[in-house]
Amino acid sequence: MSYQVGYLGPKGTFTKMAVDGFFKDYESRSYETIPECMDAVENGEVDAGVVPLENAIEGTVHLTIDYLIHQVSLPIIGEIIVPIKQHLLVHPDFDGDLGDIDIIYSHSHAIAQCHQFIHKNMKDSRISYTSSTGQAAQLISEKGGNIAAIGNELAAGEYGLKIFKQEIHDYPNNHTRFAVIQKEKKRLPMQDFQPQNYKTTIMVTLPRDYAGALHQVLSAFSWRKMNLSKIESRPMKTGLGNYFFIIDVDQTYDQVLFPGVQAELEALGCSMKVLGTYPSFLLSEEIIKNICDHKS
Amino acid sequence: MSYQVGYLGPKGTFTKMAVDGFFKDYESRSYETIPECMDAVENGEVDAGVVPLENAIEGTVHLTIDYLIHQVSLPIIGEIIVPIKQHLLVHPDFDGDLGDIDIIYSHSHAIAQCHQFIHKNMKDSRISYTSSTGQAAQLISEKGGNIAAIGNELAAGEYGLKIFKQEIHDYPNNHTRFAVIQKEKKRLPMQDFQPQNYKTTIMVTLPRDYAGALHQVLSAFSWRKMNLSKIESRPMKTGLGNYFFIIDVDQTYDQVLFPGVQAELEALGCSMKVLGTYPSFLLSEEIIKNICDHKS
Repeated sequence: MSYQVGYLGPKGTFTKMAVDGFFKDYESRSYETIPECMDAVENGEVDAGVVPLENAIEGTVHLTIDYLIHQVSLPIIGEIIVPIKQHLLVHPDFDGDLGDIDIIYSHSHAIAQCHQFIHKNMKDSRISYTSSTGQAAQLISEKGGNIAAIGNELAAGEYGLKIFKQEIHDYPNNHTRFAVIQKEKKRLPMQDFQPQNYKTTIMVTLPRDYAGALHQVLSAFSWRKMNLSKIESRPMKTGLGNYFFIIDVDQTYDQVLFPGVQAELEALGCSMKVLGTYPSFLLSEEIIKNICDHKS
Repeated sequence: MSYQVGYLGPKGTFTKMAVDGFFKDYESRSYETIPECMDAVENGEVDAGVVPLENAIEGTVHLTIDYLIHQVSLPIIGEIIVPIKQHLLVHPDFDGDLGDIDIIYSHSHAIAQCHQFIHKNMKDSRISYTSSTGQAAQLISEKGGNIAAIGNELAAGEYGLKIFKQEIHDYPNNHTRFAVIQKEKKRLPMQDFQPQNYKTTIMVTLPRDYAGALHQVLSAFSWRKMNLSKIESRPMKTGLGNYFFIIDVDQTYDQVLFPGVQAELEALGCSMKVLGTYPSFLLSEEIIKNICDHKS
């Protein structure tokens, strides 16, 4: 049986784009929520899972991180960074103008990402919300007529839609980070491309909240010249006001620096947990073009 | 004309609960996206707006913060913290058991928050996604039959539904933070309750990324014994790898400590912008009960 990859579906979403760009010789299986997808990896239903980690349209980073911490014990083994480009998609039979489009369908976050464009160019169009950008594309392909979806080029390919207007999102440099999680240590059947860098994601819990606590924690990294590419405080599920930190360090876990940091943090009364050490891959425009050409 | 409050709609969402719990003698107007709601405040269409800031179901914090930074210049003037409790809501005519419910409707984040409950107790029910918990509740009230929605008690009241099963969310201590934004300096017509504390939210931009940069920034707060209740790094819209920080300080902006921090950060080549200094209010169970009793 070939390698099975679970992902946050449906087809034609940015998560699916991450899967298609990253893996080769695999079968994919779509899940409707982040917890369902992660449970499937935990239960061995699939070999790996791909879920959004930051700045996603279809889900929130909080859900993924919280589930990794509280519910499943799965390491992050890779990161896929996908540039977010939104297009206005129509049925192939549509031959009107922008002004002829009566209804725009999409996920509320995608609509919000194209707010300026819609406000300037499609003020009279009605907006209807769907549960994902993929669902919006599917709806256009089934119904046709004077309606449009906002979604990516993969959705256009999967559902046979025409890209009516390219890149209508308000911010040019928007990216989504996806985590690859795997239970068993298996070789990942991935495309032949080089990581842009390596990262280690750790969780640090403070014993109590006091002024300067985080500053103390960061000292352990700072004097070792370890660069942090992300830091985020998150409330503990035990109530308001208790925080833990998710920190991305810009290097692979090693046997000198990280154990040193850990010993120092534990001496301060903190605890540290490694959520994964992994290569990070950026899906280039060329790779995305290849996936989409392949589908359409 | 009475004081106008815009909010991320529709009715029966947690945002609406924040509005009803916080304001008195006001008229509310529902907006479909975060940017639309904030534009309405900027344009003077409404006097104030309420949008999710952290851990929301209907939106993402990133959208709100990004829009505050890039698109509008509106201070945060208050924070409302709402405990998140999800219930299983049915049509008042439904008289079956849990096992009789064929379809569960809700926003994907609400479904994910009740993942364990559904998995254990309603494995055979089909799931159908809506664009908000409020929309799901509306659908149940219109269609009736063997279907249920996941949503809060306000949705039950607004749409005349029965709470079939209380508190089905997986984590007991989940909260959403909402920001109150206002353009003109007007007196806020708020309910008579005391803030639990005061906060100042600032944005710090680093000149470039280097090991220990954040540690240096935090020194400015640490030696002044200023407590930080939240810190989050966010990518700049200018591309991957350039970060800014959103920091919540646990005190009101003053004329000694904050200008001192700012001078120190500027000497390091950083820039600092105050996004708001405001009281923070927690909606107690009692307040929420009052709102909901009033509706039903």
